[in-house]
Amino acid sequence: MDLQPILVNGTWRQAKSPVGSFSPIDPSTAKSLEVSYPISSIAEVEEALEAGQAAANALFKTPPEAIAAFLEYFADSIESHVDDLVEIAHLETALPKEPRLKSTELPRTTNQLRQAARAARDRSWCRATIDTKANIRSKYGPLGGPVVVFGPNNFPFAFNSAAGGDFATAIAAGNPVIAKANPGHPGTTKIFAELAFECITRAGLPEAAVQLIYHLRPEDGLKLVGHPLVGATSFTGSRPAGLRLKEAAEKAGKLIYLEMSSVNPIFILSGALKERADSIASDLFTSCALGTGQFCTKPGLVVLARDEHSEEFLQTVRKLFEQPPSGFLLGQSVLDGIESALKTMKNAGAQIVTGGEKLEGPGLRFANTLLRVSGDIFLQNPAALQQEAFGTVTIVVFAKDFDQMTKVAAALEGNLTGSIYSHSADRDENLYGQLEPILRRKVGRLLNDKMPTGVAVSPAMVHGGPFPASGHPGFTAVGIPASLLRFAALHCFDNVRPNRLPAELQDKNPTGHMCRLIDGEWTQRDI
Amino acid sequence: MDLQPILVNGTWRQAKSPVGSFSPIDPSTAKSLEVSYPISSIAEVEEALEAGQAAANALFKTPPEAIAAFLEYFADSIESHVDDLVEIAHLETALPKEPRLKSTELPRTTNQLRQAARAARDRSWCRATIDTKANIRSKYGPLGGPVVVFGPNNFPFAFNSAAGGDFATAIAAGNPVIAKANPGHPGTTKIFAELAFECITRAGLPEAAVQLIYHLRPEDGLKLVGHPLVGATSFTGSRPAGLRLKEAAEKAGKLIYLEMSSVNPIFILSGALKERADSIASDLFTSCALGTGQFCTKPGLVVLARDEHSEEFLQTVRKLFEQPPSGFLLGQSVLDGIESALKTMKNAGAQIVTGGEKLEGPGLRFANTLLRVSGDIFLQNPAALQQEAFGTVTIVVFAKDFDQMTKVAAALEGNLTGSIYSHSADRDENLYGQLEPILRRKVGRLLNDKMPTGVAVSPAMVHGGPFPASGHPGFTAVGIPASLLRFAALHCFDNVRPNRLPAELQDKNPTGHMCRLIDGEWTQRDI
Repeated sequence: MDLQPILVNGTWRQAKSPVGSFSPIDPSTAKSLEVSYPISSIAEVEEALEAGQAAANALFKTPPEAIAAFLEYFADSIESHVDDLVEIAHLETALPKEPRLKSTELPRTTNQLRQAARAARDRSWCRATIDTKANIRSKYGPLGGPVVVFGPNNFPFAFNSAAGGDFATAIAAGNPVIAKANPGHPGTTKIFAELAFECITRAGLPEAAVQLIYHLRPEDGLKLVGHPLVGATSFTGSRPAGLRLKEAAEKAGKLIYLEMSSVNPIFILSGALKERADSIASDLFTSCALGTGQFCTKPGLVVLARDEHSEEFLQTVRKLFEQPPSGFLLGQSVLDGIESALKTMKNAGAQIVTGGEKLEGPGLRFANTLLRVSGDIFLQNPAALQQEAFGTVTIVVFAKDFDQMTKVAAALEGNLTGSIYSHSADRDENLYGQLEPILRRKVGRLLNDKMPTGVAVSPAMVHGGPFPASGHPGFTAVGIPASLLRFAALHCFDNVRPNRLPAELQDKNPTGHMCRLIDGEWTQRDI
Repeated sequence: MDLQPILVNGTWRQAKSPVGSFSPIDPSTAKSLEVSYPISSIAEVEEALEAGQAAANALFKTPPEAIAAFLEYFADSIESHVDDLVEIAHLETALPKEPRLKSTELPRTTNQLRQAARAARDRSWCRATIDTKANIRSKYGPLGGPVVVFGPNNFPFAFNSAAGGDFATAIAAGNPVIAKANPGHPGTTKIFAELAFECITRAGLPEAAVQLIYHLRPEDGLKLVGHPLVGATSFTGSRPAGLRLKEAAEKAGKLIYLEMSSVNPIFILSGALKERADSIASDLFTSCALGTGQFCTKPGLVVLARDEHSEEFLQTVRKLFEQPPSGFLLGQSVLDGIESALKTMKNAGAQIVTGGEKLEGPGLRFANTLLRVSGDIFLQNPAALQQEAFGTVTIVVFAKDFDQMTKVAAALEGNLTGSIYSHSADRDENLYGQLEPILRRKVGRLLNDKMPTGVAVSPAMVHGGPFPASGHPGFTAVGIPASLLRFAALHCFDNVRPNRLPAELQDKNPTGHMCRLIDGEWTQRDI
């Protein structure tokens, strides 16, 4: 069986001396698909890095208009190939074609690309700052090396390493991308890279602005992220892998942005529980079961104070969880991860309320699983009891009182999100005021009366948070233009002659409407 | 001899079980001053961290107006104690009282504090971003834990851990500070902390918003920066120490901002050399000798192409360097560092043109030192030949032609700055166009026809750059408001009830003029 070609240095070609090969599975059957992809050697990675470096140099001189055009051509091209993309992504992930892949995730992906194009064209993202008196001018610019994107398994389109949010924003900020496909959906990623590559040529971008490899040995992944030619890495995936890559990159002085794990705690205050336990239970289950629980923002931990309504709430949730799972797990490693997390939680004293077992085939399926634990036991071993389990798995912590709820909040690691449900009038206001400051510093996004699984592509969105949810709480992976800043360096020009300045820093506003901070004032005017 | 008191948790007190003590030296005599400071134990560090955590919680609810008032009171108070500060800083560093300490560095320090106060009061730095349709609102907020500041030896005022730029911006962003004094000027730092502490009480800030310890064992420093209660660390100092702290912090998932080393290359193009070699030589020497060469932005590497003017240029520089050093080195470790760097460079093939020896006492003095090396030899061992030597030490690289100059540029590590001198008309324009893109990505601040030692406190300034100059090229240590962002986390509020939002994200603009990004438009209006 021939191996699928990789895209390196402007050419689709067979991998040179691959160190192995792999075939993705169809999660609905748990059987391998009849197509093989190479595991690339470090020599091939270095070839891609060198081409990426040359592309970074060329992109540095490429007008933002060409970069924006590329992103828009690519979005158009994706829309012309919807059926192919949906077909292969469904095959590789078993995610439903409708509405998930075709009507939700694909439009989100093209929307991100177009928003990134608008940001590139608008140029305000680069925060041009000019001190006319001192003649010092600065802006964000590209990193000077390719951005390596490791995409996750759970969003074959919207977080795809060759088309998703990281890809779009790295390119919009002027960096080439080396896409490292998620081995769960290499075929989907290959189609994206094919379409992107066609658009690159059309837009006049350097040929190595997009490159694709499918897989690496773990030790070669570590070499890649710490390589001197890398600009930055973005990684969305498991915590153990993320931590290893983080250490390798940072030891070499390289940037890495990580999204690693999150249990997305839901705190239900007593007034809300009394007022609307059933609707919260229903929201919780719906949010947990979305994408068969394989969302980074799935609510995996619920905290409430034991009272006359709490046990009934749990039973309502239990009934909802007792229905069969809505879909398949994305891979064997996801199933193994659930089993491992459940074992850790059970060993630490959690009890299974329902579920807890994998289901018979066909395909990779795990029963919806609800656990419970007391606040006392949680506080004895908080690390073990805030395990991320990627699937429809949630643990309910029964605190003995509100004070213990705040202690549970204080014992949380960093998370992407945290939600507080409170009484619709002001009955819980006092409790909210005590809990919020504790939870605020543990999460990137704080929600009221809302489950966290909808991650709107909005300029105000933050998809990030304190470690270990991410590697740096000052950045976001979703929300344009802010998410471009991950892939940017500050470039200052001190006494640089006017004709040598980048257009964004010259006296004349290059677009007529780009926002610049000139002598302390945000303005669209010329100097 | 009694040990000087530390400031922990709102109290000036003797260190509890210190693990040692130290006395600073007077660099002009190389003799110890008759005053001793404790080396704190890790238990004491943990006490400070716990108090800092409580102060972080309290500061989270402190109005920006109180934070701004504190910074302004502190600036005023410093101005009321100029003579004391100048006296002790001169004693501890041997830096000249005039103009350096009193008329240059002290006004810079109070200026930074007042700029930070204005930023805190203005609030625009937090980049409030509001999506009214989705009702998602976000801004930068404090980190949720104390910021540890390790100040450098070379700026006892402007980069002091208890009064300098990092201190001012960490506080302005809403974080408490644990100042780790530079052991070169603990007495200066103690006075700053005393003044700051008085102002804290007056402004109504939590008492542990400023704490001071003087020194730690190296292993305890590593524990400090990786401690779960730390918000972030900022470190300005030597590369070996910086790299050890970086690894310890990042392994624990903690933020650390570093300014570690820079040789600040100066490229002189042929037209400039022909046109004004003497004036460039004079600029170079003046810049190198500022502060006895102990500036982070000292030009330590000069690159030119060998031609009929290059040898004469070197001889002009040599004559300037042959004068005796203008001052003292800040400590024995600085002198040891120069000797070690020179040894490394000589072993790699550099030749001493003048200097190269320490001078007889009194005090710590080293001859102004000029080295030379060919481009061929430089390119054989670029790592050894771009040593930072903190002192009036510079190496001139004689490239065989312009092409080799670009290769030298490509072989540079990340630097804070890089300068290009070119012909005053357009004779060097073609060369500039080839060199600039290579140098651009190696430096934070690119200069034309100017030496890098003036680091203006301007919103457009970037004092940072690619590794190893700093740890992240997207941040700056100088330049308010941008430098506040190092000490900030993104806080998103999704569907949060209006009365629970921070003032900066409520419909009404809290100051009437703070800039916010509302539905894609930067505006000062209310919603």
